[in-house]
Amino acid sequence: MDFTSDNAAGAAPEILEALSRVNGGTAASYGADDVTTRLTRRFSELFEREVAVFPVVTGTAANALALATLTPSHGAVMCHELAHVHVDECGAPEMFSGGAKLVPVGGAAAKIDPRALAASLAALPQGVVHHVQPSALTVTQSTEMGSVYSIAEIEALAEIARGRGLRIHMDGARFANALASLEVSPASMTWKAGIDIMSFGATKNGALAAEAVLVFNPDLAKDLAFRRKRAGHLLSKMRFLSAQLEAYLTDDLWLRLAAHANAMTTRLAAGLAQTAGATLHLEPQANEVFVRLPVSLIKHLRDAGARFHPWPMPGDDDQARSVRLVTSFQTSAAEIDSFLGLAAG
Amino acid sequence: MDFTSDNAAGAAPEILEALSRVNGGTAASYGADDVTTRLTRRFSELFEREVAVFPVVTGTAANALALATLTPSHGAVMCHELAHVHVDECGAPEMFSGGAKLVPVGGAAAKIDPRALAASLAALPQGVVHHVQPSALTVTQSTEMGSVYSIAEIEALAEIARGRGLRIHMDGARFANALASLEVSPASMTWKAGIDIMSFGATKNGALAAEAVLVFNPDLAKDLAFRRKRAGHLLSKMRFLSAQLEAYLTDDLWLRLAAHANAMTTRLAAGLAQTAGATLHLEPQANEVFVRLPVSLIKHLRDAGARFHPWPMPGDDDQARSVRLVTSFQTSAAEIDSFLGLAAG
Amino acid sequence: MDFTSDNAAGAAPEILEALSRVNGGTAASYGADDVTTRLTRRFSELFEREVAVFPVVTGTAANALALATLTPSHGAVMCHELAHVHVDECGAPEMFSGGAKLVPVGGAAAKIDPRALAASLAALPQGVVHHVQPSALTVTQSTEMGSVYSIAEIEALAEIARGRGLRIHMDGARFANALASLEVSPASMTWKAGIDIMSFGATKNGALAAEAVLVFNPDLAKDLAFRRKRAGHLLSKMRFLSAQLEAYLTDDLWLRLAAHANAMTTRLAAGLAQTAGATLHLEPQANEVFVRLPVSLIKHLRDAGARFHPWPMPGDDDQARSVRLVTSFQTSAAEIDSFLGLAAG
Amino acid sequence: MDFTSDNAAGAAPEILEALSRVNGGTAASYGADDVTTRLTRRFSELFEREVAVFPVVTGTAANALALATLTPSHGAVMCHELAHVHVDECGAPEMFSGGAKLVPVGGAAAKIDPRALAASLAALPQGVVHHVQPSALTVTQSTEMGSVYSIAEIEALAEIARGRGLRIHMDGARFANALASLEVSPASMTWKAGIDIMSFGATKNGALAAEAVLVFNPDLAKDLAFRRKRAGHLLSKMRFLSAQLEAYLTDDLWLRLAAHANAMTTRLAAGLAQTAGATLHLEPQANEVFVRLPVSLIKHLRDAGARFHPWPMPGDDDQARSVRLVTSFQTSAAEIDSFLGLAAG
Repeated sequence: MDFTSDNAAGAAPEILEALSRVNGGTAASYGADDVTTRLTRRFSELFEREVAVFPVVTGTAANALALATLTPSHGAVMCHELAHVHVDECGAPEMFSGGAKLVPVGGAAAKIDPRALAASLAALPQGVVHHVQPSALTVTQSTEMGSVYSIAEIEALAEIARGRGLRIHMDGARFANALASLEVSPASMTWKAGIDIMSFGATKNGALAAEAVLVFNPDLAKDLAFRRKRAGHLLSKMRFLSAQLEAYLTDDLWLRLAAHANAMTTRLAAGLAQTAGATLHLEPQANEVFVRLPVSLIKHLRDAGARFHPWPMPGDDDQARSVRLVTSFQTSAAEIDSFLGLAAG
Repeated sequence: MDFTSDNAAGAAPEILEALSRVNGGTAASYGADDVTTRLTRRFSELFEREVAVFPVVTGTAANALALATLTPSHGAVMCHELAHVHVDECGAPEMFSGGAKLVPVGGAAAKIDPRALAASLAALPQGVVHHVQPSALTVTQSTEMGSVYSIAEIEALAEIARGRGLRIHMDGARFANALASLEVSPASMTWKAGIDIMSFGATKNGALAAEAVLVFNPDLAKDLAFRRKRAGHLLSKMRFLSAQLEAYLTDDLWLRLAAHANAMTTRLAAGLAQTAGATLHLEPQANEVFVRLPVSLIKHLRDAGARFHPWPMPGDDDQARSVRLVTSFQTSAAEIDSFLGLAAG
Repeated sequence: MDFTSDNAAGAAPEILEALSRVNGGTAASYGADDVTTRLTRRFSELFEREVAVFPVVTGTAANALALATLTPSHGAVMCHELAHVHVDECGAPEMFSGGAKLVPVGGAAAKIDPRALAASLAALPQGVVHHVQPSALTVTQSTEMGSVYSIAEIEALAEIARGRGLRIHMDGARFANALASLEVSPASMTWKAGIDIMSFGATKNGALAAEAVLVFNPDLAKDLAFRRKRAGHLLSKMRFLSAQLEAYLTDDLWLRLAAHANAMTTRLAAGLAQTAGATLHLEPQANEVFVRLPVSLIKHLRDAGARFHPWPMPGDDDQARSVRLVTSFQTSAAEIDSFLGLAAG
Repeated sequence: MDFTSDNAAGAAPEILEALSRVNGGTAASYGADDVTTRLTRRFSELFEREVAVFPVVTGTAANALALATLTPSHGAVMCHELAHVHVDECGAPEMFSGGAKLVPVGGAAAKIDPRALAASLAALPQGVVHHVQPSALTVTQSTEMGSVYSIAEIEALAEIARGRGLRIHMDGARFANALASLEVSPASMTWKAGIDIMSFGATKNGALAAEAVLVFNPDLAKDLAFRRKRAGHLLSKMRFLSAQLEAYLTDDLWLRLAAHANAMTTRLAAGLAQTAGATLHLEPQANEVFVRLPVSLIKHLRDAGARFHPWPMPGDDDQARSVRLVTSFQTSAAEIDSFLGLAAG
């Protein structure tokens, strides 16, 4: 009963096996190998357009490389105030961009509010030399609160951003979970909705350590190879990274794994909705549940071996505290049911 | 017959197997797992002192993180003019350090000449605000030319550097090869000889993607965890990285692999010394051969399927060009003999 | 009737004359001249302790150099949400610090609220590698809204900051105005209250272009000379910069100029308090008035030649808008009275 | 007899007077004033084309801003190995560019050798991700050794650089001295010869602290306003900076001052050519003399009150050492003659 994070899960067997499969003989290094070539083709098919692909090992690297591509050092990146890039990356976007500023914007359910975005942009007028210049918007899909932007919501934000000349990034650390939730095509949720560049995540959903920066706007790909190398993120034995992503995309493995994780969260949320004293903060759409529980119940669950992170939220008090519960491709229905059984206890 | 690079090799079976072995169940993320804890203990035993261990996936990351720890942004890092950090990392040390300067120093066989180092330091007087301030020395072991510093040579450079208050880094991308060559202890070749921090490489010698920054001077470890995270180099599923290093260090695997690679180079060099028209640039001490060959022979070898990189050197002309031949843990004696057979042709 | 900014004023005659006075003959360059030596001594007397003095030409430079001294690149600088360093310097602190994050904190009258500061610090727990690490607090005295922190208020903020190991900076672009307002000693408003380093402004109060970073904590002065040079802020003919500051401090010129500017603001605010339809946003304590005026009156004033900046504030509407009125050492009582006469119209 | 530097000189009276002249009343701040508008027009006339003008207070700032405009952070700036940007700016170009690398190139008389430039470029092949990418060339006119590039020499270097897609910068800290030496037009020595951007110096030749980045290639001007602000180099009371440059350019003051300084150097060099034991290192073309003198003579001169900097050069020994002698607009023929009299002594 480990609900601490989808990062606590291991690797999917299909992905581990791919490592052995590509291990024979020598291969050209630094991404000139056949696996990486195949992978780029695969991503282009999947997204129904030519895509430049830059595999890396962490979401933080993918995000920071992507954002640095979109903003000069005197620029500003508009993001949700809970965005991983703003809160949880120890300043990586600032480092990679040479000191650009992240401008937090509010919005319910960890989704950027369009009016708040417009207001934040208005406060940073174009061409005024005293202020950093809005250069990029980043949206997280699925969000840090387990919600999912609809395509229309992405398009609305993109339109506002585009109107000020911004480029748009999607942090897709849990992209598969969002896609499995909305049941739309990768293309329609990204470049067709206005996304220029994305961080495509696989680690949280079954890879060992594999993400990729995907560039839909060809103008933006030019410097990325240099940025990646310079940041120490170009792997010499790239085939072992590309192989993870290739296996991930083969036979819809990624969508199957994500659908399972989402289903486990749905099962968990449904049970908690029936649990005395439990209050869901929002209806989960992906693989994360945010719920307020009685302090006594939290203790009871932990004592019984359940693991999860506290997640302080406004409204918490001495009687009831909020926690985050994350399911992964590895989570079993039995684990959910045990947890709910304890909670009902 | 692929002698392009030890990066072209795959992964050692023992290391691949370790990935499966650590895959069961969930594990604490970001390095709080048991494998990583064991690894730190293992490195401390191996180096006969407490060592702070920061696993990362590339040598460029290890070097840049280590050097940024040693130098302020107005500092200078003294290095050999052929050093990987200076020539082959697209400015990673500059990025991670906020713009410190690398000062190239000459010396035969890719080893820094002590007098040249002293002269370079004298040209950057302490406290003069117009000049960057020497802050660190970095030595590569084994070097970019396949030579190996003796312990006395390292000590001599460290003493000069220490006299100016510099801290000292070792780029050990091929540390195992150097160790197997000198047959000394890890401790005696590093901190006992004056090294404060090192990049410990495993990728070139059998790992998929695994290096580690090792810190011998405890004062220097404080900020490294933040620097690593901020650079996108803290893996969430760290156990898969630590497991590679653990397997690498188990039962002397690393030394056996390196000794094999070195032996293959010795066999190759011995054969080339007997080859008409071939001139070795220096006696190899690790796993790289630098040799000048007749242009016609180069063509003959390539046509027969041998792969290696051109390596322009002073003295090359239209008749004879220099090339680099690298052996790895995977290289077989049969490959060497085939190559030599062709060369003898 | 130019109330746009104290930056719109010229230079005080005493300061201009000092430039001619130091112009004879040659002088050692880069700050080794006699004027600069005298200036350092003068600042030390004034602040009743040894002070390291680094003259520069802009407040942005002084702030960015000072903050970069206090924070590593993975650090966070706590500041008011209206702070000049956060809003009006186009990311200079981010540039000089290598990408540290500024964390905006709320508080009435542009003064940081102690509870809000404590809450912001709690949200960035020490040692958690995912978050930037609070390293510095900066307070502006007088503030961006023309208010002035009492010494007790500074001490309270400093105590909270010190409790988390932060160093403390004062942005004293209008330090003289604050001092003239509180009528306390420079020492009691700075290092005795917990300030480690400050930006001492003179430009807005009569210099051509002269500010200084003053360091009270000797540990922090070490690298500043290199930082200043590296940022292009070390003047070769330093005597012309130091002479401005020397004249500024001579015979209490600075305090007389500031007292005059403050008095003009007091006169202006008193008049506006009697003006129909005018609402002061806060009681001015230094040399700035923030007032909401009927739109028709704003037009009337502008048509009559008055100059000032719009300053949108919550509560503005189609009928009444807020503006900022700044007085300087040059502002005359006649100008104030003309303006008030028009306003009374 | 102060020959330490042209930075040791004071300010020309015409320039000091201009400060008083522009001091009346208020003026728009941050460069929106009339003086700055006139200055831009004046530079455009002088250079016979539209020029974007960014006044700053130091040559280091001008150089670093200009170079950062030309190179991405993964770029390389080709410069002479004695270039001020490489040797004497404590890493300012690295800071402003986010860590680009300066690549020193050799050449006699501090002038870049075209073949050496071509060889250095060849060593950094385009598109190879391991190497920093040559992005800019910088030439100093007049050079750090007091020599002057002919227009044909500039064109030859520019052509090589242009062939690799580099942009070209001129460090004109002593531009007036070079112009007075060659007696050509500003246009022909800059943009007509291939220069995209320059640092136009006035401080060394009679200003208090006044330089300007001049942009000839309009594509490059876009971000400079933000870069300047962000670096703390946008002066609020800009009129006092622009007024220095305006006076400098009025009635050919700048050329008269430079011609005088050059003439003093010519007189000094002619005398030294006749001095027993003195060896000129090169024929001076601007306002600097590099000469080897007997150690006894150096002592004799210093004892008599002459001031100058030692300037170690290859070939110096215990008997004779090299020194640098710089003349300025303030240097008098009487000073030169006194010095030569002592030297002949």
